[in-house]
Amino acid sequence: MALEAQVLYDFNAEPGNNELSVRQGETVIVLDQTVGGGWIEAQDSSGRTGLVPEGYLQVTGDGVGGGESWSEGGALVSKTTAGWDGRGLNTQAEVEDDDSEWDDDWDDQSMGGYHGDDKVEEGGASGLSTSTSTVKISLNKFPFSKGPSPEVFLLAKPPAHCRDRFPVYIEDVGPVWLYPSVPLDCLIADPKKESKLYGLKSFIEYQITPNTTSRPVNHRYKHFDWLYERLLEKFGSALPIPPLPDKQVTGRFEDDFIRMRMEQLQAWMTRMCRHPVVSQSDVFQLFLTYGDEKEWKAGKRKAERDEMVGPLIFSLVEPEAAELDAAEVEQKCEHYSRFTRSMDDGVRELLNVGHTHWKRCTGPLPKEYERIGRAFRNLSTVFTSSRYPGEETLTDALTAAGQTYEHIAEIVAQQPQKDLHFLMETNSEYRGMLGNFPEILAVHKAAVEKVRESDRLVSAGKINNSERKFMNQRLSNMSYSLQAEMNHFHSNRIYDYNRVMQLYLQEQVTFYQQIADKLRAALSRFATL
Amino acid sequence: MALEAQVLYDFNAEPGNNELSVRQGETVIVLDQTVGGGWIEAQDSSGRTGLVPEGYLQVTGDGVGGGESWSEGGALVSKTTAGWDGRGLNTQAEVEDDDSEWDDDWDDQSMGGYHGDDKVEEGGASGLSTSTSTVKISLNKFPFSKGPSPEVFLLAKPPAHCRDRFPVYIEDVGPVWLYPSVPLDCLIADPKKESKLYGLKSFIEYQITPNTTSRPVNHRYKHFDWLYERLLEKFGSALPIPPLPDKQVTGRFEDDFIRMRMEQLQAWMTRMCRHPVVSQSDVFQLFLTYGDEKEWKAGKRKAERDEMVGPLIFSLVEPEAAELDAAEVEQKCEHYSRFTRSMDDGVRELLNVGHTHWKRCTGPLPKEYERIGRAFRNLSTVFTSSRYPGEETLTDALTAAGQTYEHIAEIVAQQPQKDLHFLMETNSEYRGMLGNFPEILAVHKAAVEKVRESDRLVSAGKINNSERKFMNQRLSNMSYSLQAEMNHFHSNRIYDYNRVMQLYLQEQVTFYQQIADKLRAALSRFATL
Repeated sequence: MALEAQVLYDFNAEPGNNELSVRQGETVIVLDQTVGGGWIEAQDSSGRTGLVPEGYLQVTGDGVGGGESWSEGGALVSKTTAGWDGRGLNTQAEVEDDDSEWDDDWDDQSMGGYHGDDKVEEGGASGLSTSTSTVKISLNKFPFSKGPSPEVFLLAKPPAHCRDRFPVYIEDVGPVWLYPSVPLDCLIADPKKESKLYGLKSFIEYQITPNTTSRPVNHRYKHFDWLYERLLEKFGSALPIPPLPDKQVTGRFEDDFIRMRMEQLQAWMTRMCRHPVVSQSDVFQLFLTYGDEKEWKAGKRKAERDEMVGPLIFSLVEPEAAELDAAEVEQKCEHYSRFTRSMDDGVRELLNVGHTHWKRCTGPLPKEYERIGRAFRNLSTVFTSSRYPGEETLTDALTAAGQTYEHIAEIVAQQPQKDLHFLMETNSEYRGMLGNFPEILAVHKAAVEKVRESDRLVSAGKINNSERKFMNQRLSNMSYSLQAEMNHFHSNRIYDYNRVMQLYLQEQVTFYQQIADKLRAALSRFATL
Repeated sequence: MALEAQVLYDFNAEPGNNELSVRQGETVIVLDQTVGGGWIEAQDSSGRTGLVPEGYLQVTGDGVGGGESWSEGGALVSKTTAGWDGRGLNTQAEVEDDDSEWDDDWDDQSMGGYHGDDKVEEGGASGLSTSTSTVKISLNKFPFSKGPSPEVFLLAKPPAHCRDRFPVYIEDVGPVWLYPSVPLDCLIADPKKESKLYGLKSFIEYQITPNTTSRPVNHRYKHFDWLYERLLEKFGSALPIPPLPDKQVTGRFEDDFIRMRMEQLQAWMTRMCRHPVVSQSDVFQLFLTYGDEKEWKAGKRKAERDEMVGPLIFSLVEPEAAELDAAEVEQKCEHYSRFTRSMDDGVRELLNVGHTHWKRCTGPLPKEYERIGRAFRNLSTVFTSSRYPGEETLTDALTAAGQTYEHIAEIVAQQPQKDLHFLMETNSEYRGMLGNFPEILAVHKAAVEKVRESDRLVSAGKINNSERKFMNQRLSNMSYSLQAEMNHFHSNRIYDYNRVMQLYLQEQVTFYQQIADKLRAALSRFATL
């Protein structure tokens, strides 16, 4: 008997790419599970054959993987994010101990068999990415899942061989990170369609050139995703790591999509380059400056074995400032919690109305202007048929007015891509970053609570006095880390919103001015009364 | 047993006006049928009592009136208007032989017991009158109902005592009416709420001042309606008499409604004043210049007894031009038929999209701008709470940007009243006039056909040769009348559309320019990058 599989999600085949479109609930016959790259060759009930992403199929009798560990993870995460009401915070269990699986070359769209819950959300009309970004959380690295308990990370000392340190200085605005004298930057360009599996599978490769070496390196989306996973795992307890642009299954080889994804990857990389801690980390430097395939693979393995991840990285924070006590830390946490929560609400509100406005501006509104224009033109045609002498001025002007409104329809439909797009992209980035704060603040809160009960721990003989002092100092360092990060966030926020609002308003001015000018020209065609 | 009545239509009582709100399908008890003014005093099932318009009730056992004659009328009209597909052409049977009933003072909203099918259509949002206007046709005066047959009106001679003549001259554009050296005009102003029936019933009285006498006369809506009926009856076979603004039951004492109705009555009167035939007619002059109540009542009775109505008025047309034959007349009719039909389509198209646009501009669009504005302001409030130093420039600018969009929301919502309104009103007027042409053209077509068979009529001895000649000459006169009227229509059309398009575009320019300027000011509040 042939091995069968249930289709878990709709999948639309990329034309000319040897793929098979399947619909959720359908049963297909599994022809080949060893095709690699996260694909299964399958046959549908009409006998059509082709490749389907593994994650889209539940092979009969195959109870391993995604589903179960996800539901466990989900429960844990909903505990850590209680009070934030979990909007937009999708979680995903990850198992990444199979190095060989990783080194298999999986395709852009299939995240391999271990990413079974790869929810693909469609962007809005015209490729606008307004769907809820997926924030991945490697649960097993986090304090409330399998990560070290607060005692462990409050007492952990930096390993002797680790040369990373995160100094914090006090400036006018308060604690700040140490910023490099030359800011790192990179340029993503030249997306190329490449092939694997003897041409069976295709993907897009981007060229990334850092300003430090000016030497381009090539990366596929999955490499960005790998980098994102590493950064999240390493820094996710301390810094908001914004999610990557959404994965997309259909249309991923279309020029518009490639252009938009490149733009989004560029924004993501620029933000990471701008971050003094992230940009100087080994894994980030590896990504931007690896010399050859061998160096890349070795670097990858090293990064994946990195133990200074999660809350343990607080042991590397070195503030030049007076120690804070638990109450002060808690107060700061609460302030940041209120702020990030309010900003999250504000950003979502803007994204919601922006999304509605986008749909109106690209849908019904231009259609209406077009209809108004056509109505004027049609009336002009009727008037021309009157045989009444001397009304050419009116009919010409009426035709021109009609054409003007038809032109306005086009301008209206194209406008969101010119202004709203950037407003939405910036706010989407911020929504992504803000989605990390509940976790970051939860780590701090757990530490505050643990330090509060340190007297009891000493009495119970679980820690000694010098360990208690050490814990308090570590908590103070964590707070300086958080303050430095918030100040980094604020200064970037001010820069970003100032920039995007000016861009938006400038384009809006141009838009309305252009329409006013066109209508003024149309008006001048009519005979003066 | 109390006399009961079925409620035929929903009726909303005007507050403080001793009226009773009733719902379609409800049964009420008739308390008093002799209250007058087209009202019945009734009691609903909860015991509430008040006045309900007669036309809204079907008194049990009372099978007389509206319903039956309407269905007969409807069938006849749908025959005469075949090919025009009857859109927007509501018909209404009228019985007006009861002079005493007429002299009873009926109220604005109730058209008396003989107007049972008084369909009230609600205007759009903000009082926009976009509903299909009711075109009344006095069926019993028209050729295909009880009017004279084509033979009769083709052979009719003007009565000796009738001094009216409608001369037609040939000018560059073709046949034209004789225009008075000083164009008639009038100003409607000063609407006042007046009372009748010892304060039981209220109505609005308008002051109309013609430029010829500069002496104001007072009229209520029902007097305009009476004038409209007379003009339609007298001239409806030859000239398009545009319908009056719709009657409205609820809210008719609200200031906005009164202002809008006055504006519409003004437009209607201006158009009638502009018409060389209508403006010089006895009935129209009576309406504008009657001396006292006695003169008005005597003039009304005379006008209602006028026999030179319907197609008979063609006997008064006196063209100074060569006689046309039936084939030429038919050709002209066909051209006019095509033109008016196409223009009717064009006007309806514009009204439809205008109506949609009106709803969007006063509903979802400003709401969206308001939400955008609020989202910016909220974000500014959140940013202000950051405690990060030196972001006042951003937060102030963001608040100002938010207020700007909230202001834009108001501008957007108010705009249709400033431009689209006039475009819609003008097109509504034209739709009303165009709705008359099928009837006018049908009268001509019937005459053409009758003249075509005149040889047969002579053979059959039904008419003699001189009568045949007379019929042909009369048909030629009818055609000159139609041509003069079409030329009048065209010159007015060119004037009206030129004017309204300029007004519309000018206001649109101002609108977009104003928004561009406001946004430019908002932009200048941001710190330069």
